[in-house]
Amino acid sequence: MSRIENRTFDELQIGDSASIVRTLTFKDIELFAAMSGDVNPAHVDPEFARSDMFHKVVAHGMWGGALISTVLGTKLPGPGTFYLAQTLRFRRPIGLGDTVTVTVKVAQKSGQDHRVSLDCAALNQRGEVVIEGVADVIAPMEKVSRERVTLSDVALRK
Amino acid sequence: MSRIENRTFDELQIGDSASIVRTLTFKDIELFAAMSGDVNPAHVDPEFARSDMFHKVVAHGMWGGALISTVLGTKLPGPGTFYLAQTLRFRRPIGLGDTVTVTVKVAQKSGQDHRVSLDCAALNQRGEVVIEGVADVIAPMEKVSRERVTLSDVALRK
Repeated sequence: MSRIENRTFDELQIGDSASIVRTLTFKDIELFAAMSGDVNPAHVDPEFARSDMFHKVVAHGMWGGALISTVLGTKLPGPGTFYLAQTLRFRRPIGLGDTVTVTVKVAQKSGQDHRVSLDCAALNQRGEVVIEGVADVIAPMEKVSRERVTLSDVALRK
Repeated sequence: MSRIENRTFDELQIGDSASIVRTLTFKDIELFAAMSGDVNPAHVDPEFARSDMFHKVVAHGMWGGALISTVLGTKLPGPGTFYLAQTLRFRRPIGLGDTVTVTVKVAQKSGQDHRVSLDCAALNQRGEVVIEGVADVIAPMEKVSRERVTLSDVALRK
């Protein structure tokens, strides 16, 4: 996909949805830790993680939160969206190798101020809910369609 | 700091707080984009950002959310914390060069199930609230004090 496009307030319909799919790797965890500074050993220290509540390395909960914001910011509604609020319930851990499908779905529209509520959910490969929540945004009024920016490569060095 | 320690449920007192301070750089934005896949042009495309609502490049809203989870996971309560839920209200944008202080403060303790609610806030260098919310966690029962894991260096290559 070389272009990034939004869905304007007028185009959005109740029930419209968009998703991304990601499989958790240790590099994802290292990147999240480097970005946030969150070196909680549940995520970056396998020996501790084995002794901890899930008995394995799991993703930072907010990794899933970030993926929700990715769908909102790049797909639905996409560029021009004003992010007002987000609720998140962390229902199950995401382990290494788990594949999560993160979906946002238009639940409510308010014509007066262009506010839109979207139901958000991340499901694992077994169809279990790992995160759920609600996003409140002001949807864009103007159509945006732009060349997608190519990201820098990221290399991790011990 | 070469060790990472938690505060157990029994040690936590209402009003206890912990903070981190970060100044937003473009590398932070690039890392967040690489980690999440969120290439919303408001964050990674300066030309678009100048034409958009804030007229400048701003951080992904969830960057601040990630910093809140960093304080929870590394400082208060720290390792062994079970993250149940988070609410976030994005009140103001965080621009390049802005310095944010992210603080979590113990607001409620429930002895029955070791649940703790923490008020969370990110303030910019002008003392304005940029994000606020509430975290619900189950606080650790066992003391943890471990060697802090050293992160990989991250290099970005165009």
